[in-house]
Amino acid sequence: MSWDALVEHVGRIETLEGVMGTLGWDEQTMLPPKGSALRGAQRALLAELSHGWTTDPRIEGWLAELEGAADPVQRACRRNLGRTYTRERRVPPELVGAMARAESEGFQAWIEAKRDSDFARFEGPLTRILELSLRRAEAIDPRRHPYEVTLEAFDPGTSIDSLRDMFGRLRDGLGPLLDAIAARPQVEPIEDEIDPAAQEALHRDVARALGYDFDGGRLDRSVHPFTSGHGPGDVRITTRIEPRDLLSGLGGTIHEVGHGLYEQGLPHAHAGTTVAKPASYGLHESQSRFWENFIGRSRPFCGWLAGRARELLPGADLSAERLFRASNRVERGLIRVHADEVTYNLHIVVRFEIELALFEGRLSVKELPEAWNARYEEYLGVCPPDDARGVLQDVHWGSGAFGYFPSYTLGNLYAASLGRALEEERPTLWDDVGDGRFGEVLAFLRDRVHQHGHLDETPERMKAAVGERDHVEDLLSYLWQRAAEVYGVERG
Amino acid sequence: MSWDALVEHVGRIETLEGVMGTLGWDEQTMLPPKGSALRGAQRALLAELSHGWTTDPRIEGWLAELEGAADPVQRACRRNLGRTYTRERRVPPELVGAMARAESEGFQAWIEAKRDSDFARFEGPLTRILELSLRRAEAIDPRRHPYEVTLEAFDPGTSIDSLRDMFGRLRDGLGPLLDAIAARPQVEPIEDEIDPAAQEALHRDVARALGYDFDGGRLDRSVHPFTSGHGPGDVRITTRIEPRDLLSGLGGTIHEVGHGLYEQGLPHAHAGTTVAKPASYGLHESQSRFWENFIGRSRPFCGWLAGRARELLPGADLSAERLFRASNRVERGLIRVHADEVTYNLHIVVRFEIELALFEGRLSVKELPEAWNARYEEYLGVCPPDDARGVLQDVHWGSGAFGYFPSYTLGNLYAASLGRALEEERPTLWDDVGDGRFGEVLAFLRDRVHQHGHLDETPERMKAAVGERDHVEDLLSYLWQRAAEVYGVERG
Repeated sequence: MSWDALVEHVGRIETLEGVMGTLGWDEQTMLPPKGSALRGAQRALLAELSHGWTTDPRIEGWLAELEGAADPVQRACRRNLGRTYTRERRVPPELVGAMARAESEGFQAWIEAKRDSDFARFEGPLTRILELSLRRAEAIDPRRHPYEVTLEAFDPGTSIDSLRDMFGRLRDGLGPLLDAIAARPQVEPIEDEIDPAAQEALHRDVARALGYDFDGGRLDRSVHPFTSGHGPGDVRITTRIEPRDLLSGLGGTIHEVGHGLYEQGLPHAHAGTTVAKPASYGLHESQSRFWENFIGRSRPFCGWLAGRARELLPGADLSAERLFRASNRVERGLIRVHADEVTYNLHIVVRFEIELALFEGRLSVKELPEAWNARYEEYLGVCPPDDARGVLQDVHWGSGAFGYFPSYTLGNLYAASLGRALEEERPTLWDDVGDGRFGEVLAFLRDRVHQHGHLDETPERMKAAVGERDHVEDLLSYLWQRAAEVYGVERG
Repeated sequence: MSWDALVEHVGRIETLEGVMGTLGWDEQTMLPPKGSALRGAQRALLAELSHGWTTDPRIEGWLAELEGAADPVQRACRRNLGRTYTRERRVPPELVGAMARAESEGFQAWIEAKRDSDFARFEGPLTRILELSLRRAEAIDPRRHPYEVTLEAFDPGTSIDSLRDMFGRLRDGLGPLLDAIAARPQVEPIEDEIDPAAQEALHRDVARALGYDFDGGRLDRSVHPFTSGHGPGDVRITTRIEPRDLLSGLGGTIHEVGHGLYEQGLPHAHAGTTVAKPASYGLHESQSRFWENFIGRSRPFCGWLAGRARELLPGADLSAERLFRASNRVERGLIRVHADEVTYNLHIVVRFEIELALFEGRLSVKELPEAWNARYEEYLGVCPPDDARGVLQDVHWGSGAFGYFPSYTLGNLYAASLGRALEEERPTLWDDVGDGRFGEVLAFLRDRVHQHGHLDETPERMKAAVGERDHVEDLLSYLWQRAAEVYGVERG
């Protein structure tokens, strides 16, 4: 039975990925500083093993046997496994090695360039990374748009055309919203000093209420919050807590809980078939954004949260209204990771447009700062005073992660449609949320998204989940509605 | 260069062992309960890889090439690698599988038997483990005593004859000491309630003072304290803290610090040669016992500790004298893990004698409880009221770990000689300890033990470290001396 052999083989790859995930989690939360080199050697060894298994020549035969399979799991497996096999086989080892070196140099150069706000220091290494990324895309599939091939590592199934269309319409739609908000009086942030230990207790309480299973997961602290799913029963999230920034810490936890719930809800019975895995970065991000924004910044949620805060943050004076308004504060800014829900997508649009122009040869790396600043001026109405707060702010490009940024906004787009669909299907939604009953919300996501793993590609999964919806319009109408509640704006 | 190929290959094995160690540490400190099955699958996968690499047929050729090598690292490598290769190659896969199943059943049976204090439940599974252990020893080397072959997995280089001799003389010497102590008034234990967080701060302070490098290590809590060394820069220890048991928690930390210092001091430059590894369980244990007992229960240490406690345990009333006396309290008891420094070795002697009798066919598994109780009566003067507090108390046999127990007492024997040698060499030793200066003590252990890794077998390393000493006499004279200070006894 070659299917059994395939499942055993892929199961080993997946088990090894879980080990690598555990080491990655440990590195960011537990590893003593002097252990870095050792951890690097451990990860290199496992990556080498994983590469060898992923490109095992037996896979070619198994894939051929699966041609025309009727079983949906087998069909999905053929598609997913075939893609990783092709991607890993077609890139020559020299190119893999060159890319690893370029990324390592690029990361180092980025750190120094950002520190000194000196883009020139970064230009050469980034040019090299871009050149190698294009060569890699060409090696994988010379007939397709190199950006789509690159994007595929994060968001398989999403076409360059749909991205161009959605991101263009979103950009055009967000401008008027941002202008309308800017014309209104600004709302107050929450900067009260609150004991971090008490905040953490609130985070745990909220995570539990949303359905995060602590018997199969953990919540720890790390510099950058993240979720690490290692397989059934071991999905870990982290957060960051600051005494004077309750909402960004709590929002971060709710965000990671969204990721964590997706990982906990994957169809683990299909281990070894590639189907028990998340379908894409974009869909993963939709789960975090759904909980963080659609639920977590809603008025009913803030009402429930105010009650939990009264109990768990003694001394803090946080009314539902204050929480709601501060949660939905919108402000034009320079830095993506500090952006609110409205401007965030414009930060991403800038990056997407620049990546595309680089990949299509319409822009050179040298011209990056200028192109960046012009777009920030045009879309966000702000101009970076230096490159550290401009084109050098993100780690992604220096690490070779072209094509990664779109998944953030894809997540927002999908989350908006999931939210709209849920609102239409369940008239009692906001009553439940106001009462702290999240079970039906989770059940909806389990049913429409989680339990399907990587059976379908994301665009198809979204159609099956919510029908034919215009994600851009869903997101814009939702953002206008929130802004109407908080800022009193009206869509023209 | 076949030596380079060997070093690369063994380096991979050692790196993989570090990964396995990290997973093991995580399992006992971090893993969510529902992640157990996943972790089992991860460990099984890595164990399979490790077995495959350890029995790689190229090793045979490399070993042949190393025959007659003059370089001490290469000679040690030939001995160490040859041993693991032989041990893993000669045991047929069916026997490995049968052993794994028997251990898993034995562990389960032991849990139930201990819970119900029902030895009969354990008899069958333990008989099977013994039978398979004998078959394994026979497969590895039919010409040697099967117990020595089994012991070799933990304490290579130690002969059955030296064990018989040392353990016999120790047993005979401890009886009179225990009788003398029992005739004196008992000293008071310390059972003050002390805030666990404050205790932990003291543990960290002490660990740092002894030289444990927190930039290359961690201290966490776990049910059973342990040390996990994963390679250079990543050595982790754990401890257990109870509000009313300051000394056993602190002693546990000092014990693990001793293990941790050994791991941190290994000659990591020799990675990939088998030499950058601990030489034996017995030598490892000598490092923990040295710090825990010889240093940590000494009067000068207790004087220094009282000062640290005044600062870090506000409200606690712990004089140097109270700490010293309570640290050296001796009491006949039933349970090994609660035993003091004097009786501990008698608990081990009982187990060693029983294991040997089982391996030599002089005792059947059925007769175990009776043999156990008779020895406890004779050596310790106590009689277990049930098997749960007798022959069923330890996890080792049910897990297949025959031959493990002697390393505990070997550790005490070696530690005593290291202590005596250090006292003789450094007249200022106890002044330094009293002032909290432990640098020279650590330097001595680094010089005589740590930096040699597994270059020599343990008995030879001990001779090189302290000269020709009688470990039994060193241990007995040291214990008599402590008992003289605390109980006022005099050696006859």
